[in-house]
Amino acid sequence: MEGISNEACSLAGHWGLGKLIAFYDDNHISIDGNTEIAFTEDVVARFEALGWHTIWVKNGNTGYDEIRAAIEEAKAVKDKPTLIKVTTTIGYGSPNKANSYSVHGSALGAKEVNATRQNLGWPHEPFHVPEEVKKHWSQHVPVGAALEAEWNAKFAEYEKKYKEDAAELKSIISGELPIGWEKALPTYTPESPADATRNLSQQCLNAAAKTLPGLLGGSADLASSNMTLLKSFGDFQKDTPEERNVRFGVREHGMGAICNGIALHSPGLIPYCATFFVFTDYMRGAMRLSALSEAGVIYVMTHDSIGLGEDGPTHQPIEHLVSFRAMPNILMLRPADGTETAGAYKVAVENRKRPSVLALSRQKLPQLPGTSIEGVEKGGYIISDNSTGNKPDLILMATGSELEIAAKAADELRKEGKAVRVVSLVSWELFEEQSEDYKETVLPGDVSARISIEAGSTLGWERFVGNKGKSIGIDRFGASAPAGKIYKEFGLTVENVIASAKSL
Amino acid sequence: MEGISNEACSLAGHWGLGKLIAFYDDNHISIDGNTEIAFTEDVVARFEALGWHTIWVKNGNTGYDEIRAAIEEAKAVKDKPTLIKVTTTIGYGSPNKANSYSVHGSALGAKEVNATRQNLGWPHEPFHVPEEVKKHWSQHVPVGAALEAEWNAKFAEYEKKYKEDAAELKSIISGELPIGWEKALPTYTPESPADATRNLSQQCLNAAAKTLPGLLGGSADLASSNMTLLKSFGDFQKDTPEERNVRFGVREHGMGAICNGIALHSPGLIPYCATFFVFTDYMRGAMRLSALSEAGVIYVMTHDSIGLGEDGPTHQPIEHLVSFRAMPNILMLRPADGTETAGAYKVAVENRKRPSVLALSRQKLPQLPGTSIEGVEKGGYIISDNSTGNKPDLILMATGSELEIAAKAADELRKEGKAVRVVSLVSWELFEEQSEDYKETVLPGDVSARISIEAGSTLGWERFVGNKGKSIGIDRFGASAPAGKIYKEFGLTVENVIASAKSL
Repeated sequence: MEGISNEACSLAGHWGLGKLIAFYDDNHISIDGNTEIAFTEDVVARFEALGWHTIWVKNGNTGYDEIRAAIEEAKAVKDKPTLIKVTTTIGYGSPNKANSYSVHGSALGAKEVNATRQNLGWPHEPFHVPEEVKKHWSQHVPVGAALEAEWNAKFAEYEKKYKEDAAELKSIISGELPIGWEKALPTYTPESPADATRNLSQQCLNAAAKTLPGLLGGSADLASSNMTLLKSFGDFQKDTPEERNVRFGVREHGMGAICNGIALHSPGLIPYCATFFVFTDYMRGAMRLSALSEAGVIYVMTHDSIGLGEDGPTHQPIEHLVSFRAMPNILMLRPADGTETAGAYKVAVENRKRPSVLALSRQKLPQLPGTSIEGVEKGGYIISDNSTGNKPDLILMATGSELEIAAKAADELRKEGKAVRVVSLVSWELFEEQSEDYKETVLPGDVSARISIEAGSTLGWERFVGNKGKSIGIDRFGASAPAGKIYKEFGLTVENVIASAKSL
Repeated sequence: MEGISNEACSLAGHWGLGKLIAFYDDNHISIDGNTEIAFTEDVVARFEALGWHTIWVKNGNTGYDEIRAAIEEAKAVKDKPTLIKVTTTIGYGSPNKANSYSVHGSALGAKEVNATRQNLGWPHEPFHVPEEVKKHWSQHVPVGAALEAEWNAKFAEYEKKYKEDAAELKSIISGELPIGWEKALPTYTPESPADATRNLSQQCLNAAAKTLPGLLGGSADLASSNMTLLKSFGDFQKDTPEERNVRFGVREHGMGAICNGIALHSPGLIPYCATFFVFTDYMRGAMRLSALSEAGVIYVMTHDSIGLGEDGPTHQPIEHLVSFRAMPNILMLRPADGTETAGAYKVAVENRKRPSVLALSRQKLPQLPGTSIEGVEKGGYIISDNSTGNKPDLILMATGSELEIAAKAADELRKEGKAVRVVSLVSWELFEEQSEDYKETVLPGDVSARISIEAGSTLGWERFVGNKGKSIGIDRFGASAPAGKIYKEFGLTVENVIASAKSL
């Protein structure tokens, strides 16, 4: 019933995933009762429409030969995935609870377990494996060992003949990153041209793909907006499985789940996926599972604020940054320029046990003096400061596209003789992991004059701004207008930062 | 392609929504190019599998008679929704851009607009409506006026014959709530039995349904866990559209979208929908649209913390409270007992222009002295206090199931001579809307010894706890264990609150 299953199964059909065999346990029971109260579609016909081969096993309770035959048939179909609909009775064998929803959510209970054992003619003690069963299963041990030995021998031969290819395959299996891979990431200086971080992200992705054989991914039908195409590769399709640009279609939830599968399949596969940041709302379930499953998926989320302009409030994230900052085991990164974007990729690629969300701008941003990859790795750091003795008059904090505003406001305030520090808080999670000493060097406890500026919800910024500081942000829905105009309307300006600083 | 469309269309087929006619613009173009790169399923066959009637208009560019005939056919099918697949050329008429994705995301440009006008033989100025067209459309004005007059006359007659029914229909059309409706809500005292707020929610829902003719809704296959069945009504099904229990199946995203549609259809329809709180991740897109569209949907979200117990981290919300607190125009309410649950329903029903999310417990909670409906309406209020002159030694803040812990810790600390205030912050949004004076009476600025306790992310609590306070919460994923055990393991205990208070 879940929409994600249709998204994923539609792609499986499109890609002709012949190795995929899905069993559909057609037991007609859901938690709320018979599935007929909410689900009367023709599932087999739907899967056929999605390009699947389908088989119906009518007696799933005891039709062992039917089931075996269905599996053989499914294996023989190489160009399509197969759905085996298996009609069963839920709780089969239980005399009083079979075919009822009570079997789904609660245990049968000792009495009914006993009755079921009697009914099925199973006289053994709980957890006892009869010798006959053990013997049957044990046959598989030597078979498996022989298959493994055969594979190992084949691989050893392959390794001799194709040394480099074998090393690459091994690195994908082991997940070991090529030493010095990060040197492939592009470098930027304050003189590099202004650019949107979504474009800088594409430069990073393309550079990384050359050195990381397991990097692959794509967008949910926004590749040319998210800037996620790998230029050296073609499209991953049914007949071109060696390519790396995955066309997910408009299927965010399925995309996230597929990337989880890729990441968990092999440690050296590094999947990325992309859409507009606000559309994480459609795939949040998959993203939370990345975090919970320790799957290092890279979420390339562009159009990360009202700065995307005219598409308006349906497309403008507000609460999304804080919502991911609060999610356990996921890194929320919002880089401000090319150097920080490269830093975000360094962090994202190296964090194979936790997913990263990169919030990237649609609009152009200048390359800022003071940003650094090492800084990004610490999550929060000083990009400029004219104070002495770790006692600035004022600390301005920002992330992403607003770091420019903070830097400009600092320049103005310094002209008036103020000692101002500008801090990039590109990843709160990484900053929280630093030592108390380091955090104190960035945000000294004695300095209470603090202002944050970020084009999103102010909730959570109190953690860094404190009781006496101010947060400039957006606590309402956005609006449709060009980026410059809307920033002004919402008070995300150098002038407003300066006025706020003076009012502290 | 989006999974939500399959969820909604599967339900439309199940319910046999004969009035629904959907046009599918089959133009073969998506943002990333031809749909064939990601979408090769047989859409018509899929909709037939979902129980729809389908029609294919092969010439959607100029086949006006075909389109008219299709609409007539669709109208004639009364027991099924109809999909009309209309094969078209995107940008039809544009000589150089038709049938390309460039038509989707950007304007044709003056030159190509000109070429298109020439190609289509349209000689008029921009925005000019030729007399012939105007005349044709104007014919509909008297037709519409006559239909309206006919309906009004029929309704006047109905009103005479069936006074009460007509009044009910009028109230659903106008959205005016019955005067004093809230008196129907159940009342509780500290002596009322301990109960889970999900059960108290069901008492409120059932009481409200008797007085509110437009209240209807259901659960995504968790009605017996969410406790959302209206006992006086049957199931809304194809042949029983007068009933009010909607069986959404396991389709959270579709459920949210359907409730938005119900809410926006008529101001007096008050839809509620339900699932486990953590599964808001599957329907967040629809919930954000409730907020943005000012649709007063009531989201009944049970199993609201690690207190749900053994189902473990996949089912245990952590970051969800803060993620909705940060979302604009949505009310996040987490009631602590029966009185607060009734208060939450009063707020939710009366807020017809913004959705409400009710986070409700699976586990039993005591009825607390000091809670009140008026307090809930203010979002934050004092439930107990032994201080004088608005100067407590300590303020304990909590929501929902942790308010009990705060109250018990306060009792202990008071025995030791401390002046302790306990504050319920049941809805941050409502509290923020109160006057500064009121807020100062609840959380006096002079009192910096503050502790919050909530079984969720601590992020955001700094707003109320301040620089010198402490937040007791959960900033990691949950774990599978009975509620009592897991609360202890995670430090959500009276003892920990007392120890924290002493360490301030």
